[in-house]
Amino acid sequence: MADKDCIFCKIVEGKIPSEKVYEDDKFLAFLDIMPANKGHTLIIPKEHYMVFEDMPKELLKEYSLLLQKISKVVFETLKADGYNIQQNNYPAGGQVVPHVHFHIIPRFSDDGFTFDWEKKKYEDEEMQEYAEKIKKGF
Amino acid sequence: MADKDCIFCKIVEGKIPSEKVYEDDKFLAFLDIMPANKGHTLIIPKEHYMVFEDMPKELLKEYSLLLQKISKVVFETLKADGYNIQQNNYPAGGQVVPHVHFHIIPRFSDDGFTFDWEKKKYEDEEMQEYAEKIKKGF
Repeated sequence: MADKDCIFCKIVEGKIPSEKVYEDDKFLAFLDIMPANKGHTLIIPKEHYMVFEDMPKELLKEYSLLLQKISKVVFETLKADGYNIQQNNYPAGGQVVPHVHFHIIPRFSDDGFTFDWEKKKYEDEEMQEYAEKIKKGF
Repeated sequence: MADKDCIFCKIVEGKIPSEKVYEDDKFLAFLDIMPANKGHTLIIPKEHYMVFEDMPKELLKEYSLLLQKISKVVFETLKADGYNIQQNNYPAGGQVVPHVHFHIIPRFSDDGFTFDWEKKKYEDEEMQEYAEKIKKGF
């Protein structure tokens, strides 16, 4: 079901134009209009899901195969030297459009940007404590 | 088959210690020792594949389900405000260990970093040209 305020749902419905690179009955891939590098592609499910954990399992499996296929196509057709796959969730995670999407960013040896972040440092037993906390969630 | 020079293969084999959060017969998840935020988790297939496009389809589907499961667990157990999923390929893509891995980074409203990159700009018909180039790869 489309969300009437969602930009990506409007792109799926053709109400907002996009430069499409792939489409089938369940997914759409199009170029990001503010690319990290030219050829930066977004892949979305046509159905509106807000974040990654909302996706039904069967659709997610198909999504992963398509992500692999399109990554390879972008990488090869643009003769890139590498590529990044990124997927952001919630505003705190930098998600701008609340419709789940994967970024595929073709990378070039001389493109001059990195995804480097300031590394945090665990104190003493803290790393083990974090692992214990996470393990309890399974 | 393990690659004898691969750090992640050595972690799988227990030759290098790691703070594990999940393990089954095909996958291993453990804490990144240089985290973007505490709780930053890596998920790897135990089998050695260098980059994302090398992964066999059936394993990739299982990988995607596990990625979703562990993302949710990290997000919930650490009471995060968001999360990023990232996967880097080839040195130009910032891949440091040549054994395919997904990053799950828990994010907090006040964590003070972004994945913002300098936006490139398409000239005139260039965006359409890029889309055409990519479409030919299918």
